[in-house]
Amino acid sequence: MHYYDERLTDLVFSYMRDRLAMDPVPLDHPGVKDKLDAALAGLITAEGHDPAKVLEVYADQLAPAVISADSPRFLSFIPAAPTKAALLFDMVVSCASLQGISWLEASGAIAAENQVLRLIADKAGMPASAGGCFVSGGSAANLSALVVARDTARRTRPGLGVPRVAVSDQAHSSIINTLNIIGAEALVVPTTGHRLTGEALRAALEADGGRDVIAVVATCGTTNAGIVDDLAGVAEVARERDLWFHVDGAYGGAGLFAPSVRDLYAGIEHADSFVVDPHKWLFAPFDCAALLYREPRLARAVHTQDASYLDVLHTEEDEWNPTDYAYHLTRRARGLPLWFSLAVHGVDAYAEAIEKGIELARRAAALVRGSEHLELVVEPTLSVVLFRRKGWQADDYHRWSQRLLAGQIGFVTPTGWEGETVARFAFLHPGTTVEIVEEILATM
Amino acid sequence: MHYYDERLTDLVFSYMRDRLAMDPVPLDHPGVKDKLDAALAGLITAEGHDPAKVLEVYADQLAPAVISADSPRFLSFIPAAPTKAALLFDMVVSCASLQGISWLEASGAIAAENQVLRLIADKAGMPASAGGCFVSGGSAANLSALVVARDTARRTRPGLGVPRVAVSDQAHSSIINTLNIIGAEALVVPTTGHRLTGEALRAALEADGGRDVIAVVATCGTTNAGIVDDLAGVAEVARERDLWFHVDGAYGGAGLFAPSVRDLYAGIEHADSFVVDPHKWLFAPFDCAALLYREPRLARAVHTQDASYLDVLHTEEDEWNPTDYAYHLTRRARGLPLWFSLAVHGVDAYAEAIEKGIELARRAAALVRGSEHLELVVEPTLSVVLFRRKGWQADDYHRWSQRLLAGQIGFVTPTGWEGETVARFAFLHPGTTVEIVEEILATM
Repeated sequence: MHYYDERLTDLVFSYMRDRLAMDPVPLDHPGVKDKLDAALAGLITAEGHDPAKVLEVYADQLAPAVISADSPRFLSFIPAAPTKAALLFDMVVSCASLQGISWLEASGAIAAENQVLRLIADKAGMPASAGGCFVSGGSAANLSALVVARDTARRTRPGLGVPRVAVSDQAHSSIINTLNIIGAEALVVPTTGHRLTGEALRAALEADGGRDVIAVVATCGTTNAGIVDDLAGVAEVARERDLWFHVDGAYGGAGLFAPSVRDLYAGIEHADSFVVDPHKWLFAPFDCAALLYREPRLARAVHTQDASYLDVLHTEEDEWNPTDYAYHLTRRARGLPLWFSLAVHGVDAYAEAIEKGIELARRAAALVRGSEHLELVVEPTLSVVLFRRKGWQADDYHRWSQRLLAGQIGFVTPTGWEGETVARFAFLHPGTTVEIVEEILATM
Repeated sequence: MHYYDERLTDLVFSYMRDRLAMDPVPLDHPGVKDKLDAALAGLITAEGHDPAKVLEVYADQLAPAVISADSPRFLSFIPAAPTKAALLFDMVVSCASLQGISWLEASGAIAAENQVLRLIADKAGMPASAGGCFVSGGSAANLSALVVARDTARRTRPGLGVPRVAVSDQAHSSIINTLNIIGAEALVVPTTGHRLTGEALRAALEADGGRDVIAVVATCGTTNAGIVDDLAGVAEVARERDLWFHVDGAYGGAGLFAPSVRDLYAGIEHADSFVVDPHKWLFAPFDCAALLYREPRLARAVHTQDASYLDVLHTEEDEWNPTDYAYHLTRRARGLPLWFSLAVHGVDAYAEAIEKGIELARRAAALVRGSEHLELVVEPTLSVVLFRRKGWQADDYHRWSQRLLAGQIGFVTPTGWEGETVARFAFLHPGTTVEIVEEILATM
């Protein structure tokens, strides 16, 4: 199993080259359990099988039952649009099983990852001290950061009760799950136009008393609607009240690279911790989230693991161990694909590609406004567009969504907005054209 | 950035083929920060660079500053030894940025991952109901499982105080960090010969009263010494006391596939949750951990995320959403490389490769016993060997370890054992030979 096998390599390389060259990739369909189970039956045996046969099962039966998140017609949830350079370098990371655990073991990988983290910190205007690591996703990043917020408060606030975290009523589901995991309670702050403001936060803290509130979570780009909170206002209240200021930019953080919307992020430079997922709008493959701390030493105090066999990792002053900055130990060097792609294409190409999604959202909104039977639900801020088909109920949207997918016209799932089911586009693939949008709207 | 580029593809494919064909891979060296920073300086600019130049920086400057965890001479921490088939399929997952988030989106990938989870559950003797998902590492898996243990207890035990979890004094550092994160306290159970027994657990619970103890964590294969706890005894006490029985087999769980040691795992069939990392001894690339629950519905009650735009995911009865079984949302289909390699090579080849590490540990122990200036610290159980060089102090071990690495003879870092610094081998690469072991021992 551990020897180089030319035939196996040729076989898989050929499949991969074909996949990379597909333009566009097919959207594909949901699978049927019985059919998939039948295709898989008997594949794992004592003796094994011809790799060509196994790859054929994958290519013919399994792969078509995975909706391609990197299709320009995938407009649900948050799509993916990895650059070819990022995909190729993710394959390099795979082929060498490249780890990025500790400075002792993986300084070459970590130094490159840190170059990207520095770029992101600079875009956010965070100080020279800022640093962190790449983790597997936004959930892991939010959890890791909020544990640091909690334990820092425990150290600095004697007599702290059950810690509480101020969150907007629009915060992502992973924030609520995180608070449950770390044993914190939410102080839910009502929003105006689905946007958390400093004013609303101040009012909520005053009304509540704010006892044991240790942190506030703001979002720059809600997943559901792309709304950017009033970061400057929230940062000001956080400073007044000595709250940890966490900014969840899992989806929308990439907007920092887009000049046309950069102003919306004013105040992010005050973040104590900041999360952005390169596997979303920074065009990296799954799975990769960037986590930055204003003062990384606070994270070290919480996340450094202590075990006899790990003692050798903690000897040098200028070491940078990604394991010290999040809740993980073993980790793939998952920041490298973004590093390679950025080095090859340059930052301007990223800005341009991100602007393309924002521009498409504006054009889609204009198309909606221009159609008699459609209605914009909210003006798009970033690259998400919410709209309704006049007269449609929830069932209509769901049937329409299934029809679109069955016809391979688009993967566009409805969402909820103030109790109503509405249609939603999430744009970020530069290959998504206004013609595709028109084609989809014409089916409503 | 999003178009297929033949030259770029050729360039990277050629690098990858060379890396795959290296036999053995070089061990390589720790990097020097200033040198790495100099190599990286100016690589991320507005305009970008020729990919050949960027790849050259990686290949010549960065990659040699990552110690190859897949070298047969990497014997520290827990090494890696991905099969070529697993590496190649991890590259397939990369090239398509293949996700495994929800049944709706990725049933083809999830069905194959579930086939592997079923195989592992069968090896452990877990019931037909068992299921779970692949997560990024042992830490994430332990956290996800223990949160389910905690929240299940909260539902079923009214009046529960601060939850407590019984852990052995040998449990992995990530367990202690997990308990801190989830707000649980540890009831530390003393071990006999570094092994947690049912008897010791019962005694500790009786002495303590056991109030609010909701779970017990047993380890099958401690990272430091490869010791397997008395799973049957612990399971019995867990049943008596209605404790959640979590088994951490991040490293050693793979021993379930090895007939020569399978008896040591008796009792694992009673686990409520069980973790094994394929990126360790199941020969998958970084990063991949398997998490299994006896009753997956208990995990769903905790981990299912609730958000408007996710509503469409939770409609069908026979769906299996990996997001419901751990603390993550977006995820790479990280179980597929193991699936492909198992399907190609068959389970027997895995058993054989795992036995090879165990056999090598026995032979290394014999070599140590046969040497006048060496001494076995503890009889090896799985594939870790602890031994001392008579007369050496901590500094001697550290200098020796650095010498070995500088000479590219081995990456063998010392560890601690009962307050003493000792030498440690962790075997699992089938390419590690007894000659390599002899070569290393000869330097002491």
